[in-house]
Amino acid sequence: MNIGLLGMGTVGGGVYDAIAERGIGLSVTRILDCRTLPGLEQLRTADFQTILDDPSIDVVVETMGGDEPAFSFVMAALQAGKHVVTSNKLLISAHFCALHEAAVQNGVQLRYTAAAGGGIPWLYNLARAKRCDDILSIRGIINGTTNYILDGMHTRSGDFDAMLAEAQRLGYAERDASADIDALDAQRKCAISASLAFDAYVPAASIPAAGIRHIKKKDIHYCENMGRVCRLMFYATRCENGVCAHVEPAFVKADSTAAAIHGCGNMVTLTGRLLGELTLIGQGAGRAPTGVAVVQDILDIAQGLPQAPVVCAEAAVCADAVTHRYYVRKGDGQYISDPVSVAQMHKEGADFFAQIVE
Amino acid sequence: MNIGLLGMGTVGGGVYDAIAERGIGLSVTRILDCRTLPGLEQLRTADFQTILDDPSIDVVVETMGGDEPAFSFVMAALQAGKHVVTSNKLLISAHFCALHEAAVQNGVQLRYTAAAGGGIPWLYNLARAKRCDDILSIRGIINGTTNYILDGMHTRSGDFDAMLAEAQRLGYAERDASADIDALDAQRKCAISASLAFDAYVPAASIPAAGIRHIKKKDIHYCENMGRVCRLMFYATRCENGVCAHVEPAFVKADSTAAAIHGCGNMVTLTGRLLGELTLIGQGAGRAPTGVAVVQDILDIAQGLPQAPVVCAEAAVCADAVTHRYYVRKGDGQYISDPVSVAQMHKEGADFFAQIVE
Repeated sequence: MNIGLLGMGTVGGGVYDAIAERGIGLSVTRILDCRTLPGLEQLRTADFQTILDDPSIDVVVETMGGDEPAFSFVMAALQAGKHVVTSNKLLISAHFCALHEAAVQNGVQLRYTAAAGGGIPWLYNLARAKRCDDILSIRGIINGTTNYILDGMHTRSGDFDAMLAEAQRLGYAERDASADIDALDAQRKCAISASLAFDAYVPAASIPAAGIRHIKKKDIHYCENMGRVCRLMFYATRCENGVCAHVEPAFVKADSTAAAIHGCGNMVTLTGRLLGELTLIGQGAGRAPTGVAVVQDILDIAQGLPQAPVVCAEAAVCADAVTHRYYVRKGDGQYISDPVSVAQMHKEGADFFAQIVE
Repeated sequence: MNIGLLGMGTVGGGVYDAIAERGIGLSVTRILDCRTLPGLEQLRTADFQTILDDPSIDVVVETMGGDEPAFSFVMAALQAGKHVVTSNKLLISAHFCALHEAAVQNGVQLRYTAAAGGGIPWLYNLARAKRCDDILSIRGIINGTTNYILDGMHTRSGDFDAMLAEAQRLGYAERDASADIDALDAQRKCAISASLAFDAYVPAASIPAAGIRHIKKKDIHYCENMGRVCRLMFYATRCENGVCAHVEPAFVKADSTAAAIHGCGNMVTLTGRLLGELTLIGQGAGRAPTGVAVVQDILDIAQGLPQAPVVCAEAAVCADAVTHRYYVRKGDGQYISDPVSVAQMHKEGADFFAQIVE
């Protein structure tokens, strides 16, 4: 199976390495990148049309990231009858329906396991579980950067700025970390996961999302005095009129699995009506793990594994149906609230808040 | 796809329910059981030959447990060109090579995801990971009964006898709990997992296995004073001359994932050279979860998912290559040992011992 690879960055490099090393019947025959690629000059092109027009390329693998030109390239590839595998969560969450519809219309597959959970075969196992079960809810820790910061604040008593700077120095956070610390990255991954779990398109912007930009040491101390640990969690549940979903800091119990996720780790849990809870923990990012997740998607296409149809009708997303107690800091005050709805808490404008997980 | 179901006990009942409820292109057309099955008289037979001779039956699902007659039935089914799915860990660990060879010779599939990890798609994900990675090691908590007992001794200060009696009352342990508390069940599941992970047949009896039959409250207190939690763990690693594997109580760190496994939960971890660590946590037993795991195997056969070849050459199992410090109780003495090999510790005859996990 011949692959046209779009983007030779971290993930693309991991894909290239895994295939070059293992063979496994796959071959990267063309790489789109605007940089020169020493040693790979013969594969490199700066013109996407070269890949699109090459009838020997069966699968286009998009690891460029971002919206455009990724969207135009992926759409053109699907319309040209090429399978697409991508790790691009922004692309999938923004164009979920258009891309899935194009794949169906052209009789090709669109796979994106690495777009939520990185190296964890989360979306794959979610789809597999659905073959003979109903998914009742999903939840987890799906952003490694914020987990690194929060874990450091607990275990090494760092403050937010110091932990963020350390994450940036180690390459776990980008220089502009807004998408991570404001929970936009987790919001997108939650949207993709919920769309697959509940057979309805959940737009990312419809999910209330609060991050950890304003967390202070005093919040962590309050949390620890409750015998708890702070994590940035996503939640999505099937509810009467659609899907309830939200992303927010949470004070989890110290003996819970979420509290045992350290460093950049990710954790995702599905609850099936028959299966009960199934949790996966692993590397949510990184060159080799994410590269492997992309290659696994390609192998599924090569083996002719069927894909369940994806439902593109937009879900009603409600944030009023779920209520929690919250830890709230406003000005100098810190307190535990009475139960309030997610919608109300996210509107209220506290300096920092976190769900108290029952 | 038509199914002949051998045994309508807990797991068989879960398989029957899941298929009856969801359809999914499967149909149980014959059930072998020596009991009368009210409402299912038309499907029931007491004679296996009826199933073997029925050309409309594509898959034989064995959920009887035990060695004979399960082995003879499964072998005959494979030789008759029928696919086999089983949840029977004793069967698979005892006849690993004979059954796999019969499957290959007759061009049919043999799947047994539920035999290790119950509802957790552990063996499935292990095989999937191997498609483009090398498995360096596997480990985990793979016996729910002993985890229930150990968790209860920590969180509710119960003693061993009380916790075992409670587990038996709730149906989490059999009246003769020897296979669980003497770690034979975990030993078999470790053997199956290691055989798949490392491409060599690992006989269960070659794996040193120590259980928790003799654990006392004073062991738990010692463990807690070290800031740790006791779990029954299995370990298997590729080593120079074969496979290192062992099953033993372990004092794990309180903030580790293993410490967060409560009640009957199971946890399994693989370490891939590329993927790093991937951990799965879920229900290691139970009617519905285990039933779903069996049905997923049937669906994989129905969808024509290819199976990687299994290597049947026997592995050299070494227990000398791995050394740990151990907590040891002998007579009235309790102490932490210097590093000793697994082989030596398991031979030494302490009243109770547990690995100190680094």
